[in-house]
Amino acid sequence: MIQKAVILSTGDELTSGRVVDTNSNYLADKLAEIGLDLAAVLTVGDVPERLEWAWKTAMAMADVVISTGGIGPTADDLTNETVARITGRKLVRDQESVDHMKRIFASINRVMPENNLKQADLPETSEVIRNPLGTAPGFRMAVPQAAGHTCHLIVLPGVPREMKPMMENSVIPWLRKNRGSDTIYAARVFQTFGISESGLDEAVAGLIKPEEARVAFRASFPQISLRVAVEGKPGEAERRLAELSERVRGRIANFIYAEGDASMEEVVAKLLTERGFKLALAESCTGGLIGHRLTNVPGSSNFFKGDFVAYSNDLKTGLLGVREETLKRHGAVSEQCVLEMAAGARARAGADLAIATSGVAGPGGGTPEHPVGTVCIALVGDGTQASRRYQLRGTRDWIKILTAQVALDWLRRYALGLPIGESALFRR
Amino acid sequence: MIQKAVILSTGDELTSGRVVDTNSNYLADKLAEIGLDLAAVLTVGDVPERLEWAWKTAMAMADVVISTGGIGPTADDLTNETVARITGRKLVRDQESVDHMKRIFASINRVMPENNLKQADLPETSEVIRNPLGTAPGFRMAVPQAAGHTCHLIVLPGVPREMKPMMENSVIPWLRKNRGSDTIYAARVFQTFGISESGLDEAVAGLIKPEEARVAFRASFPQISLRVAVEGKPGEAERRLAELSERVRGRIANFIYAEGDASMEEVVAKLLTERGFKLALAESCTGGLIGHRLTNVPGSSNFFKGDFVAYSNDLKTGLLGVREETLKRHGAVSEQCVLEMAAGARARAGADLAIATSGVAGPGGGTPEHPVGTVCIALVGDGTQASRRYQLRGTRDWIKILTAQVALDWLRRYALGLPIGESALFRR
Repeated sequence: MIQKAVILSTGDELTSGRVVDTNSNYLADKLAEIGLDLAAVLTVGDVPERLEWAWKTAMAMADVVISTGGIGPTADDLTNETVARITGRKLVRDQESVDHMKRIFASINRVMPENNLKQADLPETSEVIRNPLGTAPGFRMAVPQAAGHTCHLIVLPGVPREMKPMMENSVIPWLRKNRGSDTIYAARVFQTFGISESGLDEAVAGLIKPEEARVAFRASFPQISLRVAVEGKPGEAERRLAELSERVRGRIANFIYAEGDASMEEVVAKLLTERGFKLALAESCTGGLIGHRLTNVPGSSNFFKGDFVAYSNDLKTGLLGVREETLKRHGAVSEQCVLEMAAGARARAGADLAIATSGVAGPGGGTPEHPVGTVCIALVGDGTQASRRYQLRGTRDWIKILTAQVALDWLRRYALGLPIGESALFRR
Repeated sequence: MIQKAVILSTGDELTSGRVVDTNSNYLADKLAEIGLDLAAVLTVGDVPERLEWAWKTAMAMADVVISTGGIGPTADDLTNETVARITGRKLVRDQESVDHMKRIFASINRVMPENNLKQADLPETSEVIRNPLGTAPGFRMAVPQAAGHTCHLIVLPGVPREMKPMMENSVIPWLRKNRGSDTIYAARVFQTFGISESGLDEAVAGLIKPEEARVAFRASFPQISLRVAVEGKPGEAERRLAELSERVRGRIANFIYAEGDASMEEVVAKLLTERGFKLALAESCTGGLIGHRLTNVPGSSNFFKGDFVAYSNDLKTGLLGVREETLKRHGAVSEQCVLEMAAGARARAGADLAIATSGVAGPGGGTPEHPVGTVCIALVGDGTQASRRYQLRGTRDWIKILTAQVALDWLRRYALGLPIGESALFRR
C-alpha cells in the first residue's frame, strides 16, 4: 500500500547552491499525477552522517522514498553504501551492469577507469533499474519496518536525462501498480501558449469544481501546462476526465497547442511533415534557436531545408536580398525587413514557406524607437504574407526563447489554417 | 556562534511540482559564500503537522534556520502561527507593519482586504525584518535550546523579488557578524571539457588531500566543473587556495576552459572579440545550435557574421559551394564535405574563420559506414585548415550538444593558438 512519498535529493552541488534542484520538481509533478502524497523533500550534501540521517528520516515517514544523486563513480558518491549500511545488506556486484558500462566505454573507444565498477555494486535483495543512457544503474528494494509495514526505496541517478526515462519507463508503472487503492488517477495535460497563468486560472475557474478534479498549473517558460486529474474507479475516472477535458477545450482551445507531453517544435514538425510543406528560416535576433529546436525533432530533414542566420546587415542584403533602401528607411528591426528576409529565404532554399525574425534582444542596442524587446516576425508562403511587430519584456535569453516560440506558433497556425499572429499577448 | 544552517522551504506549490524551488538554491549559494555549513534543505507543503515537524527538526539540527514562504495573507499561510506555537510565544500585531501595508494599498488606490492584517502578527520577542517591496514582514528570533545553545530563526517571504533584498540588506550582514568564527571559506571553480567525471576524479586524486580542501565535481552535460574550497583564516585560506589551484592547473590545464562561472560560448565570444576575428558558421547536424549558443552572449554581433544551416544537400552545394563530386564520392558526412562547407561559409560571409559540422544525429539515418553518432567538423581560417571525424554516442539531442561543444572548443583553441582537434576524447 503506497500512498505517502518522500523525495531525497543529495549532492554537495545542491547544498552549496551550485545547481538548482529541478529533479525534485519533476518528481513532485509525476507523483502528483499518480495521486501520491509527497510528505517532504529532504536535501543533503555528500556527507555520510547526513545521508544516513536523511535516509532514516525519510524511511520513517513514507511508504516510498525516491532518491536522486550519489550513484556516480567518484569518491563522493555515497548512496549505495549508505543504503546498504542502514539496511544491513551487503553490496553485490551486478555483472549485467558491468557489461553494460563496458559496452558504453567500448563504443566510444575508451578504456574504462577502474572506479566506474563501484557503480555496479548494489545492495543484495535489490532489483536493478536499468539505465540505458548512462553507466550507473538504479535500484529498488523493499525494507521491512516496524508493525508489518514496508518502505520501498527507489534509487535513481542525479543526471536528469538519465533519471527521467528510468522514472517514466520503470518507476511510474511500478508505482501505479502498487499504489494499493481501488481508485485510480486519470490525468490529462494541456500545453498552452499565449495566455498568462492567472488568465488560465480565471478561464478554468467555474469550469471545474474542486470536488470534481484536481487542477494544477505548471509554468515552464515559455509555456504553461494545465493538468486535470480525476480520482475514481477504473473506467469511471477516465469517463469523467473525458467530459471535463471537453469543457476545458471548449473554453481555451485557442491557446492549447498540444495534449500530453509534446513540445511546440514536435507539433510543428508533425504538421509540416503531414502537409508536405518544405520550410526555410531566416533568423536574426533568435540566432539559430528556431532551427535548433526544429532539428531536435527526429526526421526533421523531411520538411526542413535550412536556416539563414543573417546576423550582420550585409548578409541580410547580400544573402537574403533585403533592399538597402529597406534597411535605410525602416531599419533591420522592421516588418518590411523581415518580410524581405522571409521572401529571400524561401526563394533561396526553394521552400514552400519561410519565417523570419529580427529584433533587439538586449541588453545593449535599444533605442527610443526600438527599445530592447522590440521584435518583428514575418511569414511568407504560397499566396500568404504576414508580419507583426511585438514588444516583449525580459532578459536576452527570454526574448530569444519567446520570439522563437511565437514564430513556431505561427507555423503551427499556418499549417492548421488558423489565423496567424492573433495568438500572442505581446502585440505592440 | 552560528555555523550550521538549515533551509526550510514551504508551500504546496513545491510539493505538487508546480514551481521549481529557486529560493533554496539562492540561499544555499549565499550561505556558502559566507562559509556557513548548510546541513539540509527541508521542503514541506502547507500542512500544519508537517510544518511543525519541519521546524522542530530544523531547530534540532542547526544554529540558524532560514525559512521562505507561508507568511502571506491567505488561510494556507501558516508559518507565523507555527513558529509561535512551537516556541510557546504569543502573536502580537506590529503596528509599523500595518501602517506599511496600508501605505502600499493606498499607493495603488485599492482597499486593503482585512485578511492582510494577519501578516503583521509576529511572535513576541522577534525582531522585524522590513519588507520594502511587499506587505508581509519577515522576522528573526532567538530560541534557547538545551545545554545553553541558541537557535536563531529567520523567516522570509517566498516571493523571490521580496525575499532577496531582505536577505541581502538585512540577513547576510547579520549572519556575517554573528558567524562567530575567525575562519573563512575560499573557493575556486574550474570548468572542464574533454575529460570524464571519473577521469577528472583520478587526475585530481592524490593531488589534494581530503584535509587540505573540499573537492566537488558537477556534471552539467557537456561540461564538468571542479570546485575546490579551502577553510582557513582570512589571507591564509586564499593563499592555500591559490597554491592548490596551481597544482590543479598543472595537472589538467589541457581540459580547463575557464575558471569561475563562464560558459564555453562566453569564453569563445570573449576571445574572438579580443582578437578581432569575424566568424561564420556552416551547420548541418547541429541545426543552428552553435549559432544559438554564441548569440546568447551579449555583444555577439561584434564577431558573429552569420550561420548557414544547410540541412539539405542542395543548400550545401548551391549555397556553400560544396562540389557534387564531393557528395558523390565522400557523402555529406565526410571531412571533405565539412572542409568545403567551412570554406564556402567563410567566403560567403566575408569572415576570417568558419567552422562547419555534419553528422548523423539519429535515431534514423545511420549506415554501417556512417553509424548514428558519426560527426565531422572542419575549421578554415587564414592559412589554417583542419578537419576531424568523431564517433559520438547518445541520443539525438546529446549528439547535437556534444558536437556543438567540440566545435566551440576548436574555436577557443584556434583563438589561443593551441593545437585544435586534440582535445576531444571522442576521436574515431
